[in-house]
Amino acid sequence: MKVPEKMRAACLVAKGKIEVKEINVPKPAPEEVLIRVEACGICGTDVEVRDHGLPGQPPFGEHFVMGHEYAGVVVGLGNNVDEFKIGDRVAVEVHKGCGKCQNCIMGNYTACLNYGRKDKGHAAGGLTVDGGFAEYTVNHINTLYRIPDSVSFDHASLATTAGCALYAFDIFGGYVPGDTIVVIGPGPIGLALVQVGKALGAEKVVLVGTRENRLSLGERMGADYTVNIKVGEDPVALVKEITGGIGADVVFDAAGAVSSLDMAFDLVKAGGKVVMVAFYKDPITVHMSRAVKRHIQLYTVRGEGRRNVGRALSLMAQGKIDLRPLITHRFPLAQINQAFDVFINRIDGALKVIIHPQE
Amino acid sequence: MKVPEKMRAACLVAKGKIEVKEINVPKPAPEEVLIRVEACGICGTDVEVRDHGLPGQPPFGEHFVMGHEYAGVVVGLGNNVDEFKIGDRVAVEVHKGCGKCQNCIMGNYTACLNYGRKDKGHAAGGLTVDGGFAEYTVNHINTLYRIPDSVSFDHASLATTAGCALYAFDIFGGYVPGDTIVVIGPGPIGLALVQVGKALGAEKVVLVGTRENRLSLGERMGADYTVNIKVGEDPVALVKEITGGIGADVVFDAAGAVSSLDMAFDLVKAGGKVVMVAFYKDPITVHMSRAVKRHIQLYTVRGEGRRNVGRALSLMAQGKIDLRPLITHRFPLAQINQAFDVFINRIDGALKVIIHPQE
Amino acid sequence: MKVPEKMRAACLVAKGKIEVKEINVPKPAPEEVLIRVEACGICGTDVEVRDHGLPGQPPFGEHFVMGHEYAGVVVGLGNNVDEFKIGDRVAVEVHKGCGKCQNCIMGNYTACLNYGRKDKGHAAGGLTVDGGFAEYTVNHINTLYRIPDSVSFDHASLATTAGCALYAFDIFGGYVPGDTIVVIGPGPIGLALVQVGKALGAEKVVLVGTRENRLSLGERMGADYTVNIKVGEDPVALVKEITGGIGADVVFDAAGAVSSLDMAFDLVKAGGKVVMVAFYKDPITVHMSRAVKRHIQLYTVRGEGRRNVGRALSLMAQGKIDLRPLITHRFPLAQINQAFDVFINRIDGALKVIIHPQE
Amino acid sequence: MKVPEKMRAACLVAKGKIEVKEINVPKPAPEEVLIRVEACGICGTDVEVRDHGLPGQPPFGEHFVMGHEYAGVVVGLGNNVDEFKIGDRVAVEVHKGCGKCQNCIMGNYTACLNYGRKDKGHAAGGLTVDGGFAEYTVNHINTLYRIPDSVSFDHASLATTAGCALYAFDIFGGYVPGDTIVVIGPGPIGLALVQVGKALGAEKVVLVGTRENRLSLGERMGADYTVNIKVGEDPVALVKEITGGIGADVVFDAAGAVSSLDMAFDLVKAGGKVVMVAFYKDPITVHMSRAVKRHIQLYTVRGEGRRNVGRALSLMAQGKIDLRPLITHRFPLAQINQAFDVFINRIDGALKVIIHPQE
Repeated sequence: MKVPEKMRAACLVAKGKIEVKEINVPKPAPEEVLIRVEACGICGTDVEVRDHGLPGQPPFGEHFVMGHEYAGVVVGLGNNVDEFKIGDRVAVEVHKGCGKCQNCIMGNYTACLNYGRKDKGHAAGGLTVDGGFAEYTVNHINTLYRIPDSVSFDHASLATTAGCALYAFDIFGGYVPGDTIVVIGPGPIGLALVQVGKALGAEKVVLVGTRENRLSLGERMGADYTVNIKVGEDPVALVKEITGGIGADVVFDAAGAVSSLDMAFDLVKAGGKVVMVAFYKDPITVHMSRAVKRHIQLYTVRGEGRRNVGRALSLMAQGKIDLRPLITHRFPLAQINQAFDVFINRIDGALKVIIHPQE
Repeated sequence: MKVPEKMRAACLVAKGKIEVKEINVPKPAPEEVLIRVEACGICGTDVEVRDHGLPGQPPFGEHFVMGHEYAGVVVGLGNNVDEFKIGDRVAVEVHKGCGKCQNCIMGNYTACLNYGRKDKGHAAGGLTVDGGFAEYTVNHINTLYRIPDSVSFDHASLATTAGCALYAFDIFGGYVPGDTIVVIGPGPIGLALVQVGKALGAEKVVLVGTRENRLSLGERMGADYTVNIKVGEDPVALVKEITGGIGADVVFDAAGAVSSLDMAFDLVKAGGKVVMVAFYKDPITVHMSRAVKRHIQLYTVRGEGRRNVGRALSLMAQGKIDLRPLITHRFPLAQINQAFDVFINRIDGALKVIIHPQE
Repeated sequence: MKVPEKMRAACLVAKGKIEVKEINVPKPAPEEVLIRVEACGICGTDVEVRDHGLPGQPPFGEHFVMGHEYAGVVVGLGNNVDEFKIGDRVAVEVHKGCGKCQNCIMGNYTACLNYGRKDKGHAAGGLTVDGGFAEYTVNHINTLYRIPDSVSFDHASLATTAGCALYAFDIFGGYVPGDTIVVIGPGPIGLALVQVGKALGAEKVVLVGTRENRLSLGERMGADYTVNIKVGEDPVALVKEITGGIGADVVFDAAGAVSSLDMAFDLVKAGGKVVMVAFYKDPITVHMSRAVKRHIQLYTVRGEGRRNVGRALSLMAQGKIDLRPLITHRFPLAQINQAFDVFINRIDGALKVIIHPQE
Repeated sequence: MKVPEKMRAACLVAKGKIEVKEINVPKPAPEEVLIRVEACGICGTDVEVRDHGLPGQPPFGEHFVMGHEYAGVVVGLGNNVDEFKIGDRVAVEVHKGCGKCQNCIMGNYTACLNYGRKDKGHAAGGLTVDGGFAEYTVNHINTLYRIPDSVSFDHASLATTAGCALYAFDIFGGYVPGDTIVVIGPGPIGLALVQVGKALGAEKVVLVGTRENRLSLGERMGADYTVNIKVGEDPVALVKEITGGIGADVVFDAAGAVSSLDMAFDLVKAGGKVVMVAFYKDPITVHMSRAVKRHIQLYTVRGEGRRNVGRALSLMAQGKIDLRPLITHRFPLAQINQAFDVFINRIDGALKVIIHPQE
């Protein structure tokens, strides 16, 4: 496959400022591959990266290439790579741990103690090293999963979103057939949680939110019940009713709102589980004794991990999850700034906005 | 609901000898309900019970009523029961633990240390106390699960089979989306394992057996691959091929044959899991060092448990598992001996044979 | 053993008012035993029970007998009890689950869904049914553990405290050899956590508090480091220093203060564990995103459970934990109100105050 | 620290033949350090390596340096190493996973799918790459643990043995305070299991064997009970007696004998755990239905792993385990063949035989 020397890439040239420029196509190091990026989603985290910067991120002004939710085709192999071959269609997970801190050795690479230290082997594509808003990018083989034939690049670019939702089940064991599950917050992660819950056999999935269009999308994506708290609907009453007064087995807080964790404590059964899969606008105020007295266990997940991107792609190919309804907009790379505007301002109900770097 | 004083019941009047007799309808004790049995399956264990007797079983000659896979309608309530009401359709799990040994207190009631001791509160319906081959029977509320409206009594009588398969996943965590799974032994449990594996998101399910009709039933029930070792097909070669040489994530031995556990060690990946869900004709010869050297972990499950019958009924109602293809024959109670013959001799391809005590 | 008809008991005759009265010695029901109480500790929860009342507690004015941390001698057996015999020395755990809700069946009896419902089989001695501030009391056999010969009644009355600390390890797996552990809050539970941490092989145990006498008691009980935040000592700096900048493997919040959970997030390593084993004066304000972003998992424990009282007694007998330094005062039953005063106002450094009902 | 160009090393020059030769001192690659070996133990596996060869081992005749249980001093650093510094005293674990197969990514590096493939990053020092029977050797930093000051090199060379025993607890959760444990097989691993069991709070540890001297060593190392089956002592009767007829919570088969696994099934309680931590002379004959019917779960461990060598060193420094009584002989490198003879033929009761490469 012919790979050019130069490529177009959306570079973060200054705080808050992305420019599409021509830069060198990167070279894959040993255990890395070169990927021709076909689709790369915009995530809320990207807005943080662009406008404020996150720990581990290169300093503003270094031509940093953002974008951490992407899929593409392997077009080059670094030394010592036979795990993938030219032409493989691949999706990514963000985190490549250093491989040598105590967390990575034990498999907790999303909690790598060398986060942001490329010199120590850590890399988070699009967050700490160049990512997917470019025609080409490089990835370590640890972060790659083959895309099944039946899954499109656009769909595969959402495997990080789905992988995050799966990890949020994995973290507590993930065995939920017949269970009642509540998801607070119908954003992309929340909607993915709904689908994963159904895919894993949960009987009743309740989606709680504040916007009607998101909730009805949630229904189309499999929620058995939706609750709009903005119009006064009462999720606690509903959950008590459908569980014989007991409460939900698992509640996911995918809202990260000021009161959503407290709401989760009201919704979950005694001895149940609450999973936080959102970044809170800190600090929050919470009645923690309710969790302690009722023996609730709390889990956190910050993104995809534990190889759940691979599981996500499998469920997509099996037809058990389908996140394509989340995709509301697609833009060529040249229009990336317009794409960010649409995403941030939720223009035309924007939910997931996908960049096509080859267009 | 009118309940008579007398009923017909298939009594184990002597070793190897079942007779349908008229006996008293039992009275539910506190925390028990009276059930009008609508369907009760014959299981391989029943043949053992009839012909040899199992530990904890009443002595032959005591008019013991067998049958542990049943479903019916609540027609009477013992004292202190408001968890169920007259008219509820219910399926059962076999084991009611004593509730006071160290295993029961910790939730391992299928390993109750007072197994067979009714005086201590243990009861296994159809195994240690009267069961379902009768018009009526009593059950402790701990063993009962409501049948969803869309699930028939015949189907619900297989909830123990499905619950056993679910427990065999639950025992190792039960989180398998995208995994490759092998099931050795296409009996009722093996076929249920195939369906549960698919229901929980396993990508590739391989069924290994020796009879073509069972294997093709397995295919209809969801197996992605079937292997007939009797005609020389090689499951190890197949699994290596479909897993890139790595091996299966989980292998279930539902055959309990002399070489099936060794085969499982050949099929499973290094670091993988093997679940034994069969009673071996002891002793077996096994190359255990293969398991040790390759860091294989082994699990055993003897039947349904950990409330998995409830999960099974939910998956049935969701349409994620459907064990009805297993049902090959139905008989009225009066023909129970013929039913046993059909079951034991696999007449007309008999698989699950169901008794209808009300007919 | 001769048991009288009448006994002295400290009755909660009205809100905030305890009176020692003569009442009938209770009769053990089936599966219960009658205990001659030799020692019963006062716990912070008792003050709540006396002055405000807790859910599930009998209404004020019913002659309720408080006291949930006790040890004594079996002097009577209910029907069907052969698990214990007259003369056995026993300690208790508080919770006897109903045995039939979904949580109890699964072994999570401290999250019993029938909490406070004696009619359904739940009982929490001294909280929802009569307890140990009396010459005699009854207990279900599920709540009893034999006291090893070498453990005194006073020491055994602290088995609930130790059992709570053990449960706080058990809840996350409990495997900590070589780990660094921080305990925030040097109350009885916190001090027990220090000892249990050392008993289970933790290498470095740090105790954080605000009072010098408690911290130096902590040192005597095994803490490797103590930090007095009131005098400006910095636990985060210390923990970073002794862990090579990584943070603690596990942090226990046994303080339940307004900022203690946030402090735990600062002390724990990325991917580490935080265990809440305190009742917070709700609500607290917390920077939850710190937990999410650093992949911290959170656990809660409300008291002893999962049979950890039995484990506690064994560690006492082995000499691996010794909570006797916690006992600062002992009173006969007649002086219970004075004992409460001493306890509440921490007179003479009161920590654990023990009532001797036989004196 | 001055490092010479040449060193003495015990080379496996042909099948069954070790010769001490002068070879080049190896150079540490990036992420590796050079170690001056101070002590290296002989293990039963070494005899296999020498006389038969194991999978992944270099072909006979390549001057392979055996020895996988060693401790020494860091005397050289590869590129990019700041985790260790010159002069650090270190002990090793054997397995360095490839870091990129699915097992390694998930933390199961002892089940690395690239076992024996140095080109893919896997290395097992002394098994697949050069090890510790030499004056110097190199190790990846992932395999190194600092030795506490109070632990000698000889003792630290047993950290693999102790780490294996710890892993055998870790594999099932490792929480055993108050439990009853049986260890079958009083070899080095079995004796280490005894100590670890006591260190983690097990109440009663039973050691079963066939040789009086080993059993009495076991007693000195902490076993509460020893059973010599060769002279007709009955471990089942003993365990039943000390557990009130219930059986042991955990049984370790560290014997790997033809009947030891069956014995474990007889010793363990219903619902208990059996851990295989031995290489069986395959095949064995076993009554597996006893495990299935009694809901026994089975675990395997092939060596140290999951960073348990670090935990072992900590327990050594804490004085909670002390494996020095296992060391019966010490030899300089030049006498390595004599050392093997002593070890293999158990001359003078040889148990652990240590080589001192600097002598």
